[in-house]
Amino acid sequence: MRGYTMKSADYLRRLRRIEGQVRGLQRMIEEDVYCIDVLTQVAAVTKSLQGVGMGLLDEHLRHCVRAAIADDGVEGDEKIDEALKAVERLLRT
Amino acid sequence: MRGYTMKSADYLRRLRRIEGQVRGLQRMIEEDVYCIDVLTQVAAVTKSLQGVGMGLLDEHLRHCVRAAIADDGVEGDEKIDEALKAVERLLRT
Amino acid sequence: MRGYTMKSADYLRRLRRIEGQVRGLQRMIEEDVYCIDVLTQVAAVTKSLQGVGMGLLDEHLRHCVRAAIADDGVEGDEKIDEALKAVERLLRT
Amino acid sequence: MRGYTMKSADYLRRLRRIEGQVRGLQRMIEEDVYCIDVLTQVAAVTKSLQGVGMGLLDEHLRHCVRAAIADDGVEGDEKIDEALKAVERLLRT
Repeated sequence: MRGYTMKSADYLRRLRRIEGQVRGLQRMIEEDVYCIDVLTQVAAVTKSLQGVGMGLLDEHLRHCVRAAIADDGVEGDEKIDEALKAVERLLRT
Repeated sequence: MRGYTMKSADYLRRLRRIEGQVRGLQRMIEEDVYCIDVLTQVAAVTKSLQGVGMGLLDEHLRHCVRAAIADDGVEGDEKIDEALKAVERLLRT
Repeated sequence: MRGYTMKSADYLRRLRRIEGQVRGLQRMIEEDVYCIDVLTQVAAVTKSLQGVGMGLLDEHLRHCVRAAIADDGVEGDEKIDEALKAVERLLRT
Repeated sequence: MRGYTMKSADYLRRLRRIEGQVRGLQRMIEEDVYCIDVLTQVAAVTKSLQGVGMGLLDEHLRHCVRAAIADDGVEGDEKIDEALKAVERLLRT
C-alpha cells in the first residue's frame, strides 16, 4: 500500500524545486552572498521540505492508517505508532 | 564582510551532499518507497539543512557581529537583530 | 468521545510538574540566574510541554481518528484533518 | 553580568501568565475538553515559552556577548558558543 502513488508527480515537482533551491544555495556560497541572506534561504528550503513531509504524513494517515484500521485492528495501531514516531522526528529536527 | 569565506568549501561540500539527498528522495518517490521511510529521509535532509543553518549563524555571530561590535556600537545592534530574526525564522520552520 | 479520559491522571501529573517548572523559572529570574541557564530550563519546559502534546496527538489518533474511521468514512477524514493541523501548529511553534 | 536584570519584571509577568496557561491546561483535562482543543492550547503555551526563550537569547547577545567582546576576545568566543548551543537546544525541542 503506497498512499501517495497517485500524487507522486506532485512530490517530484516539489522535490525538483527543492533541488533547484539547494543549488541556488551553492551559488550563494560561491558568490559570497551575505551569510544572513543565505540563512534566510536555508529557512525557506527547510520550509519547503517540511511541506513535503506534511504531505507524506497526510498520505500516511489518510491511506495507510485508514486502510489498516478498516482492515485489522492490530496493524492500525502499528501504523499509528509509525505516524507518531515520524512526527517526533519532524519535531526534533 | 563575509564571515564564512574561508569555509565556503565546507558549505559547498555539505550542500552538494544535501542536493544528492534530495535527488535520493526523488528516486524514493519514483520507486514508490513506503511513505514513512520517505518521511524519515525528509527529516534527515531537514537536519542536514539545519546543520548548514547553524554553521551560518555561527559565522554570523563570530565574524559579522563581532566585527561590528568591535567597530561601532550601533552596527553591532543591527547585526544582533539580524541574528535574532534568523533564529526566529529557523524556529518557525 | 474524549480519547484520553482514562489517562487524565497522567496528564494532570505532568502538567503539575510543568507548572512547578514554570514557577522555578520565575525564581531563576528573581534570583538573577545567568540568562543561558534560564534558557536551558526554558528548553526543558518546552520539551515537557511537547511531551504532553505528543500524548494528546497519540490519544487523538488512537481513539478519535480510529473510532471515526471505524464508524463513518467522512468523519474519519475530518479527524485526520484536525490531526494534521495540530501537527503543523506544533511544528510552527 | 546578568543581561536581563532591568527587564526582570517583564519576564516575571510573562512567566506568571504562562503559569496561568498551564493551570488552564489542567482544567481542560479535568473537564474532559476535546483533545485537539487541548493540543491547540499546548501549542500556544509552547509559543509563549519560546517568546521568553527568544527574549533571553536577545539579552544574552546584546549584553553578555557584547560586553565580553568589548572586554576580551576569548570570553567573547565562549559567550558566542553558549548562544549557539542554546539555539540548538531551542531548535531540538
